Amino acid sequence: MAGTKFAYVRNFELPDPLLPDTYLVCRLDGHSFHRFSEEHEFAKPNDERALKLMDHAAKNVMIEFKDIMLAFGESDEFSFLFRKTTNLYNRRQAKILTTLTSYFTSCYVLGWPEYFPETPLRYPPSFDGRIVMYPTDRAIRDYFSWRQADTHINNLYNTVFWALIQKGGQTTTEAHATLRGTVSSTKHEMLYSRFGINYNEISDRFKKGSVIVREISSERPAAFGPSTSIQPPPQFTNDKASQVLDPPRPKRSKAKKKVKLETTIEVLHCDIIGDEFWLTRPHLLENQS
Amino acid sequence: MAGTKFAYVRNFELPDPLLPDTYLVCRLDGHSFHRFSEEHEFAKPNDERALKLMDHAAKNVMIEFKDIMLAFGESDEFSFLFRKTTNLYNRRQAKILTTLTSYFTSCYVLGWPEYFPETPLRYPPSFDGRIVMYPTDRAIRDYFSWRQADTHINNLYNTVFWALIQKGGQTTTEAHATLRGTVSSTKHEMLYSRFGINYNEISDRFKKGSVIVREISSERPAAFGPSTSIQPPPQFTNDKASQVLDPPRPKRSKAKKKVKLETTIEVLHCDIIGDEFWLTRPHLLENQS
Amino acid sequence: MAGTKFAYVRNFELPDPLLPDTYLVCRLDGHSFHRFSEEHEFAKPNDERALKLMDHAAKNVMIEFKDIMLAFGESDEFSFLFRKTTNLYNRRQAKILTTLTSYFTSCYVLGWPEYFPETPLRYPPSFDGRIVMYPTDRAIRDYFSWRQADTHINNLYNTVFWALIQKGGQTTTEAHATLRGTVSSTKHEMLYSRFGINYNEISDRFKKGSVIVREISSERPAAFGPSTSIQPPPQFTNDKASQVLDPPRPKRSKAKKKVKLETTIEVLHCDIIGDEFWLTRPHLLENQS
Amino acid sequence: MAGTKFAYVRNFELPDPLLPDTYLVCRLDGHSFHRFSEEHEFAKPNDERALKLMDHAAKNVMIEFKDIMLAFGESDEFSFLFRKTTNLYNRRQAKILTTLTSYFTSCYVLGWPEYFPETPLRYPPSFDGRIVMYPTDRAIRDYFSWRQADTHINNLYNTVFWALIQKGGQTTTEAHATLRGTVSSTKHEMLYSRFGINYNEISDRFKKGSVIVREISSERPAAFGPSTSIQPPPQFTNDKASQVLDPPRPKRSKAKKKVKLETTIEVLHCDIIGDEFWLTRPHLLENQS
Repeated sequence: MAGTKFAYVRNFELPDPLLPDTYLVCRLDGHSFHRFSEEHEFAKPNDERALKLMDHAAKNVMIEFKDIMLAFGESDEFSFLFRKTTNLYNRRQAKILTTLTSYFTSCYVLGWPEYFPETPLRYPPSFDGRIVMYPTDRAIRDYFSWRQADTHINNLYNTVFWALIQKGGQTTTEAHATLRGTVSSTKHEMLYSRFGINYNEISDRFKKGSVIVREISSERPAAFGPSTSIQPPPQFTNDKASQVLDPPRPKRSKAKKKVKLETTIEVLHCDIIGDEFWLTRPHLLENQS
Repeated sequence: MAGTKFAYVRNFELPDPLLPDTYLVCRLDGHSFHRFSEEHEFAKPNDERALKLMDHAAKNVMIEFKDIMLAFGESDEFSFLFRKTTNLYNRRQAKILTTLTSYFTSCYVLGWPEYFPETPLRYPPSFDGRIVMYPTDRAIRDYFSWRQADTHINNLYNTVFWALIQKGGQTTTEAHATLRGTVSSTKHEMLYSRFGINYNEISDRFKKGSVIVREISSERPAAFGPSTSIQPPPQFTNDKASQVLDPPRPKRSKAKKKVKLETTIEVLHCDIIGDEFWLTRPHLLENQS
Repeated sequence: MAGTKFAYVRNFELPDPLLPDTYLVCRLDGHSFHRFSEEHEFAKPNDERALKLMDHAAKNVMIEFKDIMLAFGESDEFSFLFRKTTNLYNRRQAKILTTLTSYFTSCYVLGWPEYFPETPLRYPPSFDGRIVMYPTDRAIRDYFSWRQADTHINNLYNTVFWALIQKGGQTTTEAHATLRGTVSSTKHEMLYSRFGINYNEISDRFKKGSVIVREISSERPAAFGPSTSIQPPPQFTNDKASQVLDPPRPKRSKAKKKVKLETTIEVLHCDIIGDEFWLTRPHLLENQS
Repeated sequence: MAGTKFAYVRNFELPDPLLPDTYLVCRLDGHSFHRFSEEHEFAKPNDERALKLMDHAAKNVMIEFKDIMLAFGESDEFSFLFRKTTNLYNRRQAKILTTLTSYFTSCYVLGWPEYFPETPLRYPPSFDGRIVMYPTDRAIRDYFSWRQADTHINNLYNTVFWALIQKGGQTTTEAHATLRGTVSSTKHEMLYSRFGINYNEISDRFKKGSVIVREISSERPAAFGPSTSIQPPPQFTNDKASQVLDPPRPKRSKAKKKVKLETTIEVLHCDIIGDEFWLTRPHLLENQS
């Protein structure tokens, strides 16, 4: 058969499995969004429509990929946390990465007219992505702290920067010069004394970014509810292995009854650096050191 | 600074460079397009609108990524060939793969209304992708032969299959049973004798797929032409290395004058298994064994 | 300079870092040791000289590589556990793997005459190796349980097998047939009733393998002692990062005073499947889930 | 069974195949051989015993690994070239790399007393290794040119350096200072005028390194000869694929008759930067661009 003698070229396709039992974070970034935001006249320092469109796409990704427990977005980037035991596409890296990136992009483009009804897309936006493996709960906490701290720093800078330009009449070069070397408190003070802006009163969406979390709403059988649902963490191998993996988990017996947890997906703008967010959502991390 | 103490999490981002001086083939596949084609009522066995939309997206990818020399598409998949010396994104795998996949998806969704003016998208389509490295010209030739042979085989099967259903009144189960074990000549005969279809008269688009090729139209300085342009193959390293890599290439002196080659991107439906296609386009392969 | 124009070939050397903060297990296996043990007339079912030579080589590896906390050996294989925070050779996989494998081999060959004074080496023995990353304490416990359980199973089988041959006069084929399908208790019974061997009285070296552990003997300054010493776990990044990584560790302050822990390397033949071994040596695992 | 419930830990062993149809170069380097050569009183600038011991180990590696076509050694390093179509250990990287490194080490230690009869090993020498994939003949040529050019440069420098010390009475610091910034011709002149040494008369072993090559000695059936033998390059996949890979090879018909080529392994000290070495040995490269 004609196809057969060429089919050996599949031997060049190399496997790319991700390490089992390790958290996966997939981070997407807008490709050349500096230009994209200018061409589509995004409001500065923050365009709420653009941020809500990012949230919209990210939320749809979480509806589609049940093993994503948490996402965090700011500006033109979004990070997705997969449960460490996910076996999505047998943990093949390129498959997970491209499917997610493509679906996010598709949701973004398809959702655009709803959020920008008066601004047609002038050219196709795109995103790049990467997957990073994190072996510990601590590293996951620190990863999300890193992104939220970054949001804080960027937003404070941008808020003053654009106030200097839009209200203070400076050029962008002048505004950068004005801000060079200033610490956080100076920026707060500058905002308040020159422009009457109390930074603390700025929307949490801008200061804290978007936190999209899979919340457990009940433990009733999945059949009764319309919302998306997950199973308690299945282990990545067979039953015997999972008994070994976490003998002390009392929920294993429930798992065997295949009780599904009702979950909902919520968009928040809250602190995720401190402990409270995580302590009240023990299902996000899996604590099997 | 708040961001700093968490920034160590970047240490978990591992490098993923692709081997230098090796052809890269990036293949995209529609994700669950069996369902997608049904939900959007694609014509069977081939929907010309859908195929043209794929070509549209692929052509735009080639306009955006100058180092893609050739693409081949059939059904819901497309393969893109990068020149072996491309240094796009320093050959970082995830970066190349996701940017291309995302851009293709974006072009597909944004282009949809033009090709399906009466069929709104019911949900976001998506694609998965992979990059495969091929070290030799031979393997590249065989890769594209593999895909075009596959197109042939699938199209012949599907053409008879849907004729049996649409014109012969069979169910899908019956049609599969009718075709089981039949060889190519039997299918041709069946098409002609039962349904009066001469397979050879079917559109080359369906029989041969879509071949999108970067053609060299002239060697005049790029400034004069409106079309996209490429430079003659730059080597992947510095000047000294490239002198070593291909001492006998007479074009190196031109390269130093930065003469750009005028190129155009053409969509063809021609044979790429035989030698002619390749012999008339020596720029596609780089012959440095 | 002559060397320079060719030096671009180094660009083909791709990075191969291991994921940070993840346990590394390096397992070595004798290459074709079935034949090697016959050619050098190893005693069956266990050759104490050969096992002690393996221990000798492994112990020397642990003296050389300070970040190995534990090793486990049976037959012609040895597994080495690196602390999860090791930064040996910047965690380059091939470098760690080959250096360790080569050093072990060298110790084995150089040590041979001491353990086999009357049997000259007839040809060069060799070992293959691999590194596996394990993200959790649980996986490490299970890894070593897997190897020790394997030791148990193999040794019981081999003990009966060779008794059937050496004392029972069976051929190897007959002995395998006799044992086919027998459970553990049957094998114990067979040993005792046919050959008067009480399996429980067999040397722990054979039943449990060799456990080579880095023990902490004191916390006095390293200068006073002759034994090898380690520092309390340094984190893999800079100071700021490590503060983040393990805020609750009271020992961090000591680490800053550069107190070194006195350690010794002990060869044991004890159970490592149960909890006791690990609970009494909390320094082996690092408990930062 | 006890072993089973832990066996899931094997899931953490990730595949590491090398790209098919790509040349593999495995380079070994002595680990801390600066110290090793001092402790064992190697002659300076070159110790012929040490170099011959390296050749001995490398030659034995080539006898053991039939798919190595060529090796090049200088000082404490050796590079081995595997044919591009080798399927050794299914091209698993760690397996090939460690087995070769371990076997080389074993040969080195076991061969030591023959080359250093009066100098017992004071501690175990070891080597690190890496595998680099090269897709083209050009890159292979340049790789070996790189190593031999390096040999030239180092040997000229070391020859003058040690003459300045041994015959000129300089300290090492003074000798380095004397040589700083000198070009090749100055070093030649310095050797001749100050010490009466004609560099061109120095042994080729020192100037050109060791070239160990698998030569084809005849094409008679292997059964008649005692030497090692190889088969003509089998392709890495099944017959159909290999027909596609190299249709024009007339030797394929012989391959099917399983004619083995008689080969011998020769140690040379010749130029490998120019074309002659390669043109007279067309079997070293496989020319399938």
